[in-house]
Amino acid sequence: MSELRYAEDYRPGEVFDLGFYDVTAEEILEFARKYDPQPIHTDEAAAKNSIHGGLISSGWLTGLMMLKLMQRGFICMETSLGSPGHDELRWLKPVRAGDRLHGKVEVHDVRISRSRPEMGFVNNTATLTNQQGELVFTMKSAAIVKTRTTSAPR
Amino acid sequence: MSELRYAEDYRPGEVFDLGFYDVTAEEILEFARKYDPQPIHTDEAAAKNSIHGGLISSGWLTGLMMLKLMQRGFICMETSLGSPGHDELRWLKPVRAGDRLHGKVEVHDVRISRSRPEMGFVNNTATLTNQQGELVFTMKSAAIVKTRTTSAPR
Repeated sequence: MSELRYAEDYRPGEVFDLGFYDVTAEEILEFARKYDPQPIHTDEAAAKNSIHGGLISSGWLTGLMMLKLMQRGFICMETSLGSPGHDELRWLKPVRAGDRLHGKVEVHDVRISRSRPEMGFVNNTATLTNQQGELVFTMKSAAIVKTRTTSAPR
Repeated sequence: MSELRYAEDYRPGEVFDLGFYDVTAEEILEFARKYDPQPIHTDEAAAKNSIHGGLISSGWLTGLMMLKLMQRGFICMETSLGSPGHDELRWLKPVRAGDRLHGKVEVHDVRISRSRPEMGFVNNTATLTNQQGELVFTMKSAAIVKTRTTSAPR
């Protein structure tokens, strides 16, 4: 995202198309070995014999794929101040190597902080859909974003 | 966790002390550069000038620290089957290099799947507290865990 986007620039109901994310076995394995070494994420044979029928991405990595897409097309690095919380993270279908995920995010509401007018909260729902059109991941979150007040001369 | 723990072995109200996790600047920076490259997580100077007053851990990494502790003292690798969802992730205070986090998890309820009696759901709340006794992170989640049915002779 090249332009600067402040809290005031987000509109309720606005939908951002975040484009695509290609999932690779290398990324699933590299992440899982380091951060989430459960056999369903690290061991092809064990995963094959599990309820998942094969290797699947760690849910945390799937969340980070969502984050990467959000940072590409929704959050602006220069104005983002993190997040106080996320809700209703749902891993609805397994994410596997070779999947092409499509990200979207919808803005629900925007609130400028009364006590700290230099920041606002952008509440949103983000989703990932796979190449079969199946919803694989959804998440609600609040993004803390700088307001135009921050950089305005005082 | 050395012993095998199945869904039936978790009891509502049971609290697991997960021990400690020491946060390092190296881990904060390494993770953020790869997965969450926001200046508040990757750039000391930019972080110092932000509302956070210094470098803080990516919330996703803080969640993974929680996961690591849960995998050490709550979830059993041999019986874990992942999770359908997490709720109410809250980053209540910044997590910084040098922090020593203390993890706990409390079981709320355990439900064996009717349609798939080889698995159960262990609903829980996990928390991280820092060395000042401040709650820094909380999360509700459902762990899918094998039941004893799985390995019993039929």
